[in-house]
Amino acid sequence: MSSLPIDRRALLGASVAGAAALTLAGCKGTTLAPGVSKADFAGFITAAKSVVEAEWVAGDAAAVKPWTKTYVPDPGGRHAPIGAVAPASVEEVQELVKIANKFKQPLWPVSTGKNMGYGMTSTAAPGQVVLDLKRMNRIIEVDPELCTALVEPGVTYQQLKDYLVENNLPLWIDVPTVGPIVSPVGNTLDRGVGYTPYGEHFMVQCGMEVVMADGQILKTGMGSTKNPSTWQAFKWGYGPYLDGIFTQSNFGVVTKMGMWLMPAPPVYKPFVVRHRNMGDLSKIVDAMRPMRISNIIPNVVLMMGAGYQLAMFNRRGEVWDKAEPVPDEAFQQAGEKAGLGMWNTYFALYGTPGMIAENEKIVRAAFEAIGGEVLTEGQIVGNPYFHHHATLMQGGLSLEEVGLARWKGAGGGLAWFAPVAPAKGGETEGQVALAKEILGKHGFDYTAAFAIGSRELHHIIALLYDKSDPEEEKRADACYKELVTGFGDKGWASYRTGVHAMDLVAQQYGEVNRAVNAAIKQALDPNHILAPGKSGIA
Amino acid sequence: MSSLPIDRRALLGASVAGAAALTLAGCKGTTLAPGVSKADFAGFITAAKSVVEAEWVAGDAAAVKPWTKTYVPDPGGRHAPIGAVAPASVEEVQELVKIANKFKQPLWPVSTGKNMGYGMTSTAAPGQVVLDLKRMNRIIEVDPELCTALVEPGVTYQQLKDYLVENNLPLWIDVPTVGPIVSPVGNTLDRGVGYTPYGEHFMVQCGMEVVMADGQILKTGMGSTKNPSTWQAFKWGYGPYLDGIFTQSNFGVVTKMGMWLMPAPPVYKPFVVRHRNMGDLSKIVDAMRPMRISNIIPNVVLMMGAGYQLAMFNRRGEVWDKAEPVPDEAFQQAGEKAGLGMWNTYFALYGTPGMIAENEKIVRAAFEAIGGEVLTEGQIVGNPYFHHHATLMQGGLSLEEVGLARWKGAGGGLAWFAPVAPAKGGETEGQVALAKEILGKHGFDYTAAFAIGSRELHHIIALLYDKSDPEEEKRADACYKELVTGFGDKGWASYRTGVHAMDLVAQQYGEVNRAVNAAIKQALDPNHILAPGKSGIA
Repeated sequence: MSSLPIDRRALLGASVAGAAALTLAGCKGTTLAPGVSKADFAGFITAAKSVVEAEWVAGDAAAVKPWTKTYVPDPGGRHAPIGAVAPASVEEVQELVKIANKFKQPLWPVSTGKNMGYGMTSTAAPGQVVLDLKRMNRIIEVDPELCTALVEPGVTYQQLKDYLVENNLPLWIDVPTVGPIVSPVGNTLDRGVGYTPYGEHFMVQCGMEVVMADGQILKTGMGSTKNPSTWQAFKWGYGPYLDGIFTQSNFGVVTKMGMWLMPAPPVYKPFVVRHRNMGDLSKIVDAMRPMRISNIIPNVVLMMGAGYQLAMFNRRGEVWDKAEPVPDEAFQQAGEKAGLGMWNTYFALYGTPGMIAENEKIVRAAFEAIGGEVLTEGQIVGNPYFHHHATLMQGGLSLEEVGLARWKGAGGGLAWFAPVAPAKGGETEGQVALAKEILGKHGFDYTAAFAIGSRELHHIIALLYDKSDPEEEKRADACYKELVTGFGDKGWASYRTGVHAMDLVAQQYGEVNRAVNAAIKQALDPNHILAPGKSGIA
Repeated sequence: MSSLPIDRRALLGASVAGAAALTLAGCKGTTLAPGVSKADFAGFITAAKSVVEAEWVAGDAAAVKPWTKTYVPDPGGRHAPIGAVAPASVEEVQELVKIANKFKQPLWPVSTGKNMGYGMTSTAAPGQVVLDLKRMNRIIEVDPELCTALVEPGVTYQQLKDYLVENNLPLWIDVPTVGPIVSPVGNTLDRGVGYTPYGEHFMVQCGMEVVMADGQILKTGMGSTKNPSTWQAFKWGYGPYLDGIFTQSNFGVVTKMGMWLMPAPPVYKPFVVRHRNMGDLSKIVDAMRPMRISNIIPNVVLMMGAGYQLAMFNRRGEVWDKAEPVPDEAFQQAGEKAGLGMWNTYFALYGTPGMIAENEKIVRAAFEAIGGEVLTEGQIVGNPYFHHHATLMQGGLSLEEVGLARWKGAGGGLAWFAPVAPAKGGETEGQVALAKEILGKHGFDYTAAFAIGSRELHHIIALLYDKSDPEEEKRADACYKELVTGFGDKGWASYRTGVHAMDLVAQQYGEVNRAVNAAIKQALDPNHILAPGKSGIA
């Protein structure tokens, strides 16, 4: 077992000192939370400065500016925080929640706050102070025998990867897009996914330390037993399994998290299957489903639409010069030039050469039977799209998807819409048509992918807009909300959403679900000081 | 999609009518629950008969007799229920919890109540009425494309298997021991395990319907969205993932559960590896760990001790004729005659012949390097132990382990003790020594196995005693409790326990864990009418 606490303060984002020089122009986030007076807020900030070094406490519009950056539509400015505090330790978090209770000041915990397209450090409801955990960035332990890690929320995927490389450990991480700056803790708590066989992050999470709203420390699973090395080995513990209630929720502040790491396989072989037509999607899903369920293809599979792919590396003007949404034909044409199909299905095989050869036979037969062009490395040299996905599917790091936010200009507008369905071909056609209809009505392009985790199909739609244009931001906001309700009415509810639509999505999961969540919230956080509004929970 | 509701009333266990003739001699369970008067209990029983046909309501010692059968030690009679009610529908469950609230009468929900060695239908605290869900036994849906099922609590593994066979569906189930009479719902809620690649039952559970203590119906995951077919396809839903809090808990009554089924593999090949010495265990675990983590061996692996194996098919007198605990040498000698090693490691490979051949090379090399004798079908013809495990590892059904309860006579005493550790060889030696020391001190045999789920090692100790001997039952009770505390002190806490030790085990998981559970309990079941005492939660 090896342990190496890493202090990377030098690499951290802006501190308040650096931010103070920024202008106040355009600052949002001046509305206080319900029931909180100016004096309460001021009292909280003053008290917070007695716990955390003052340079890591932001209590006015100028100081909080770095935490107001967001990509999701927020035309009303409802989602900007009014303050921020970045503690350096669990003890400081405990003190801060006590102070928050005293002043009834709600806190919005984030790990690194780089959740582009879901909200960054913006908040679900007005008047909240970001509880930014980025300074708590120790890799507490990596166990090379059990292939596990215990990390703090501020640790990034890049940091964890560097640690494994520096220590010559043959373990892989599984990263979401924009992995370098993202936190494994934050992504897992959001139930995010990656693209190796460990892509379902919550499934491979094991053990949490949680600061409860009253300041007590809960260790889930085996964390409170006398052999703490079981903590990252066994997920469930004894009695009710609690970890799940700290995901996509506001019931506690997770300050440590265990995760399983994948042993590096002897061989890794990435593939892409190109299909030429929009209508091919249904048969791709039907061909893929049995191979995912039987684990012949062991990783989370992406079916990338040409539009999404092109938007990663191009500005819109390079593909289409009109205001109306890009038609399929234009995406198809530009895609062909770039070596892309209309659908590009990425997956990989992992194992010994013999295992891979066995599985490859099955996979090739399945895709060739539905007219897919199956390509692997060597056959598609220099294709940046293949390179990008081949990187992700081996837990490699890439910031290339940040390019999406520049599709319509430097304004940086991006909101992910992610409805879920069973992994059946028949579920796709209505979804593509509905997405195009709603996006088109509001003047946006259909830039989307599908993913099969296991038995479920995620439709991942990037709503790309120009946030520097207030009118377009308003349209994007309306469009997103119509996507939520339009898809929800057909039964395709979202598995995850940004701060701007959390309540709307929660409405699709039933009143009893909301009542149970509300009862647990009231029991665990009676003053509602932790992230009110998160996932629609007040 | 196919759907076949099955009413198997004829196959159900004893109804009250059949029980009424039993004598009252030896009936336990006359203590009422705290705060419940005789009039309250009588009021509950009368009201229950207005909801459920009277023949399915047991309100006196004679009628409740069939529900008092238990294998775990209960010398004080604290764990016998005082009544039982078996509703036929969710609506009846809703009415019963309302009545229970009215009379403050606690209910102890069971699915089929065949949890031998953990408590059957006995209760954690006195004065409870069994809420027996065995009559709710519909297989609501099996989706052969998604490989999923939705079942009620009274469905048994046998029933589900029969359904798949009758409908010619190439899907496997994963069964625990004594599978034929056991409920997938009950076993999963207890976080039980089986022996195929789907052996971690809670991991492959997907969606629940839960009657809350106030009678409301919660559908977890995607169950309340407008496309209910996503319910069994996607585990997590949106917002806090709640399913976990209904396992090993008393926060609600699960009335439907979704589960994933494994597609039948083209080929299945079971193995056993024999090792001759007790001390070989450590190296077996170290050889197995990387193969489990890398999924080269994809199923939950059992390392069966000779003692446990012999106790399945023999009476104790056939192996050893003295009162003191069976020494290793006697187990070794009898084991050799039966074709058993001191440790017998069972696992299987699944896939195409080519895949299996690839993996078999790796597996054989790993075990031969540590002196294991690797055997497969054909090499071990007619060995009943191999046949038993080969059956389990393909989701086959067997009642053979019931034999354990007769090791020391027909009295039927059995309690499972199951502490957890990381899957490291070094964790085994101290455990074996400690188990033998405590068991020996109380005069019991070391009949045990180890299992590796993923990264964790379960030590599964069968405490076998003669329940017809009151003195021995007392000793078994004391022994079990000393096992819990003795192992707990060394850091090996139990992942699961019987009704007779739930509070004791809960103490090893920390005060904050208990406080959080208590707060959730209070919020969801303010009258504490659901199974007070379960997992140490009042």
